[in-house]
Amino acid sequence: MTQDPLVIFTPSGKRGRFAVGTPVLTAARQLGVDLDSVCGGRGICSKCQITPSYGDFPKHGVHVAETALSEWNAVEQRYDDKRGLPAGRRLGCQATVQGDVVIDVPPESQVHRQVVRKAASVRAIAMDPATRLYYVEVEEPDMHEPTGDLERLKRALAAQWDIPEISTDFSTLSGLQPILRKGGWKITVALHKTDIDAPPRLIAAWPGLHEAGIYGLAIDLGSTTIAAHLTDLDTGAVVASSGIMNPQIRFGEDLMSRVSYAMMNPGGAAEMTRVVREALDRLTTEIAAEAKVDPALILETVFVCNPVMHHLLLGIDPVELGQAPFALATSDALNLSAADLGLRVQRASARVYILPCIAGHVGADAAAVALSEQPGKAEELTLIVDVGTNAEILLGDTTRTLACSSPTGPAFEGAQISSGQRAAPGAIEALRIDPETKEPRFRVIGCDLWSDEPGFAEATATTGVTGICGSGIIEAVAEMRAAGLLDPSGLIGSAAQAGTDRCVPEGRTHAYLIHDGGAEGGPRITVTQGDIRAIQLAKSALYAGARLLMDERGVDRVARVVLAGAFGAHISPKHAMILGMIPDVPLDRVTSAGNAAGTGARIALCNLAARREIERTVREITKVETAIEPRFQEHFVAANAIPHATDPFPELSKEVTLPQVSFNTGGGEDGGRRRRRRG
Amino acid sequence: MTQDPLVIFTPSGKRGRFAVGTPVLTAARQLGVDLDSVCGGRGICSKCQITPSYGDFPKHGVHVAETALSEWNAVEQRYDDKRGLPAGRRLGCQATVQGDVVIDVPPESQVHRQVVRKAASVRAIAMDPATRLYYVEVEEPDMHEPTGDLERLKRALAAQWDIPEISTDFSTLSGLQPILRKGGWKITVALHKTDIDAPPRLIAAWPGLHEAGIYGLAIDLGSTTIAAHLTDLDTGAVVASSGIMNPQIRFGEDLMSRVSYAMMNPGGAAEMTRVVREALDRLTTEIAAEAKVDPALILETVFVCNPVMHHLLLGIDPVELGQAPFALATSDALNLSAADLGLRVQRASARVYILPCIAGHVGADAAAVALSEQPGKAEELTLIVDVGTNAEILLGDTTRTLACSSPTGPAFEGAQISSGQRAAPGAIEALRIDPETKEPRFRVIGCDLWSDEPGFAEATATTGVTGICGSGIIEAVAEMRAAGLLDPSGLIGSAAQAGTDRCVPEGRTHAYLIHDGGAEGGPRITVTQGDIRAIQLAKSALYAGARLLMDERGVDRVARVVLAGAFGAHISPKHAMILGMIPDVPLDRVTSAGNAAGTGARIALCNLAARREIERTVREITKVETAIEPRFQEHFVAANAIPHATDPFPELSKEVTLPQVSFNTGGGEDGGRRRRRRG
Repeated sequence: MTQDPLVIFTPSGKRGRFAVGTPVLTAARQLGVDLDSVCGGRGICSKCQITPSYGDFPKHGVHVAETALSEWNAVEQRYDDKRGLPAGRRLGCQATVQGDVVIDVPPESQVHRQVVRKAASVRAIAMDPATRLYYVEVEEPDMHEPTGDLERLKRALAAQWDIPEISTDFSTLSGLQPILRKGGWKITVALHKTDIDAPPRLIAAWPGLHEAGIYGLAIDLGSTTIAAHLTDLDTGAVVASSGIMNPQIRFGEDLMSRVSYAMMNPGGAAEMTRVVREALDRLTTEIAAEAKVDPALILETVFVCNPVMHHLLLGIDPVELGQAPFALATSDALNLSAADLGLRVQRASARVYILPCIAGHVGADAAAVALSEQPGKAEELTLIVDVGTNAEILLGDTTRTLACSSPTGPAFEGAQISSGQRAAPGAIEALRIDPETKEPRFRVIGCDLWSDEPGFAEATATTGVTGICGSGIIEAVAEMRAAGLLDPSGLIGSAAQAGTDRCVPEGRTHAYLIHDGGAEGGPRITVTQGDIRAIQLAKSALYAGARLLMDERGVDRVARVVLAGAFGAHISPKHAMILGMIPDVPLDRVTSAGNAAGTGARIALCNLAARREIERTVREITKVETAIEPRFQEHFVAANAIPHATDPFPELSKEVTLPQVSFNTGGGEDGGRRRRRRG
Repeated sequence: MTQDPLVIFTPSGKRGRFAVGTPVLTAARQLGVDLDSVCGGRGICSKCQITPSYGDFPKHGVHVAETALSEWNAVEQRYDDKRGLPAGRRLGCQATVQGDVVIDVPPESQVHRQVVRKAASVRAIAMDPATRLYYVEVEEPDMHEPTGDLERLKRALAAQWDIPEISTDFSTLSGLQPILRKGGWKITVALHKTDIDAPPRLIAAWPGLHEAGIYGLAIDLGSTTIAAHLTDLDTGAVVASSGIMNPQIRFGEDLMSRVSYAMMNPGGAAEMTRVVREALDRLTTEIAAEAKVDPALILETVFVCNPVMHHLLLGIDPVELGQAPFALATSDALNLSAADLGLRVQRASARVYILPCIAGHVGADAAAVALSEQPGKAEELTLIVDVGTNAEILLGDTTRTLACSSPTGPAFEGAQISSGQRAAPGAIEALRIDPETKEPRFRVIGCDLWSDEPGFAEATATTGVTGICGSGIIEAVAEMRAAGLLDPSGLIGSAAQAGTDRCVPEGRTHAYLIHDGGAEGGPRITVTQGDIRAIQLAKSALYAGARLLMDERGVDRVARVVLAGAFGAHISPKHAMILGMIPDVPLDRVTSAGNAAGTGARIALCNLAARREIERTVREITKVETAIEPRFQEHFVAANAIPHATDPFPELSKEVTLPQVSFNTGGGEDGGRRRRRRG
């Protein structure tokens, strides 16, 4: 008696013996090999493409004959004629096992394929989408055995896909009958799993085999901007990215002013909810149009956001977040429908997942950073700061992760800065000051030339030099300190003290003139004493938050610093450290993670298990509340100096020697006593 | 060592020994005794009232001393001062066991108490509501251990009520924070169980102990009228009943004309959905106002309705129900929210349960009749007919139940009858014809006198005699047949043939004059040949449906007939049988079940297990489709004669001898060939 043929799948290495005539798809399923199929083996979806290999495979101990698989059949021929099957490929549901064979499952035929991120820190996202398509053939109604169309669809899913039970979104039910009839009782349904164990939910259906794909949105709903990535839920590819200003800005630039608006104005919270939902609808419409995707194909949206945005999105008055003990209405992850949130562009049954909040001031955005950057898996103690209007700070290694948020305010984003502006063409994004001549040179967004290079004026003629954006102001302040224009207390020297006429009087203080566009009709760009104070407040808050976590952890130093946030990607580590924004570490241990919150949203969108993972992680994170912690105030005051009043910065000293100057003449100056606000 | 005291509960008879000091509520819970509590034993809800008995109980073998329970305590005193505790009662959570004791749990302290129906056939509904109240005390938020308010509420439910998991209606979440604070972290929540095993759903919350009760609506959504019973979900008592016309009537009197309207008019189905939902909102507002109940306390609604109404309520185009194979979009029971159905008077989170449909023409109303009348538990073969615009017919005993529907049309309700009118004051509801004189006498709604009794004219002066309602026309036709004014084929005799001038010519046929209101300015009320034909069509359809089920069951006779439907209550069994509406049985075996569909809705509203029971029953019912069954046509034609062309009516013959007359002179008459319509 001869043995059944041996079937070996690569790359998994899974192997087993199967009777002659077994379809490759059947063998794959029985072995638990990850081979996709939407049509359930009917030869129409082509998702189960495989590549057989022939010849000797000493590693596997087999010889694969040319006759190892059945001959190319009519179904494969029809598919090839219609759409073209790549050379060497077969349809796994049509090709049957005839002899020992080695079969490669190409990445695009794997459900759980990996998506490589384009960002600097290359990390793969494993596809494990919560929503999947299933093609089924449904029995026609029989008046002698009357059952509902839905009940027969359920029976088909049980028989053809081994899905014994589903729940049905009510809005999907009303469209089911015409779809079944249009498809001649053949139908593709989208089933969404909220949880691995729960019965999946029927959220969409199309006649026949649905080939136009399904999509998801990963949305980072920030106080200032709303950023969205439209993602193919099959491949994980981002097919369009788009951003929009958060229209709630008109109710208050920072979070606490929005909370105040809600407290002071009856119906104010509802109004902010309305405008942000409308903006989301607009953004969805735009991004779908850009990608030429029907918005009805967007079946999932994942949101990451801070707690105030979270509550306003949900239609919950954020008043409790404005006062101790900063109680969230709910902190767990939420599974909702687009209809629940009043989103009108997606279909009502489209699903929404909102990551869990960590604490009253540490939101789902911080959870998304934790999901993306995985501080709990770091071998060395890693500090992750997501710099925005509010900074989310995580400190962790494999033993434990801590989190807090800190109210840095919008200064790092160029707001509340006299010449500040959002990052846009014409904005100064990098700046150097010659320590000898005290002369500045700079680069603006939209031009790669420095301002002292030939051709700069011509190259920037259209945009002009319009202001300073967030990374520009950090470099400007740090360079001023390094060039001796600014003393450690943050005072700008006079022309006489600093040795340059660019230090000009402004009231009882001084400002440093970077660029005078007067001749060309452009603005006069200076860094004022007020700007320095705003930056000092912001950076002190950031540093104090980091220090508070280090106290909780009982350490004085961290091994690595990761700068996250769209803005974090543009911060120069050296300048951030001269400023004392972040704790002292070797400069090469400061890295950027790009938009980690957005990446976390994308991971949660593409991977159901990642949702469970971050829900678990968030429960285990040690939450530290900065708002009422006396040590936070102490750290905050000590961090006001540049880089710091008391903490040594030995690593920074190896790279840079900061001049020991003092411009304090006892004269009046506001002294940085402005009220800090969360935001 | 002495034994722990023995505690015996009545009426359950459950008994057990408990340590001295055990609260009675605790003992009851441990024994599984049905003793209510909303506050969880905190002495504030008073639901756990019990009555201890003292003295000798030879039956139980105990002597109960006066000291068997702890002394009346301060909590009981406070409650008694505030609200009054009935004499002899104690609070089960406060009174503790001190010695052997016999404790009676009065019906109002039982969760699963029985509600006695007021209807003729007294049957109890056991309370087992899907929605129950739970009082909990929630931990206050702690910013050092940040968790959402919802998560702390969940923790309290787990700790205080042993409910490990709940789901949360999204619309309830947004109001939770102010409720928790208003109640000082004490809160009553309503949890709804869709299924016995599923985690309950948080659908409402109130600060502190909620004492205003919760309510449910049982709604019989008929083609012509919508009837609602507002029910206390704690006691099961109907606190108000109200009805309203179905505004869809303007799109078509019967079901098939509504389906046609949907087919012929784009948006027609949506329009019919809109108007019925608006009517439901109006009805809910009215019934709540009548009972002085806040509509926000109506947490559940149960609907029973025919398949076309079912689809239109759900917003599903009923087009498929208008043509073979009459496929329902869904046949299973549905669990929805008020928001799903666009109902705006209840809170969005209020739950809706719709009973399962049996088949394309046999709806949730028939299922409700099956739930109420339980044909599957009948010892003798029982035929249940729910007479309305469409008749639902069930035939069953303990071996098997069969069901069909039959398109009787609205004639039985007085519609399509020349002098027909809805049952209202002034309508003739009963009629007798003297077989000798052929003179009629009648009774109208609103007056107990017969028309030949003294004082009738005065008593009906206000209402007048305005027309004939459904039960009146049945009696009129049957009496005409019994008095020899009508031959078995349904022809009305001429004055000469019938021997009375009341038989007046009308075109080529004759009419029987019942009442000439001309002198008083009232209408002239006759039974025309056309009326006879309409009643023949209706009764033939009903009889044919019943016969079809009997064929399926292989029987020629049934043992009992139950007339259900609001109208069924008013039909005289003898007249129904003279007419041949129902199969021949001894007259005393014909009973009325009142509004069985409405009762079924009330049972489902009050009892979660009953929902599971009817879902199971419906799956087991044998469905018979009348619309395409050739034997139905045969039965229909044979049933056109009064009482029947071929079937003998031996039981009827024992009571009544019908004159053998024939008025057919070969002249033209429309011959009953009018098209039957479902409805």
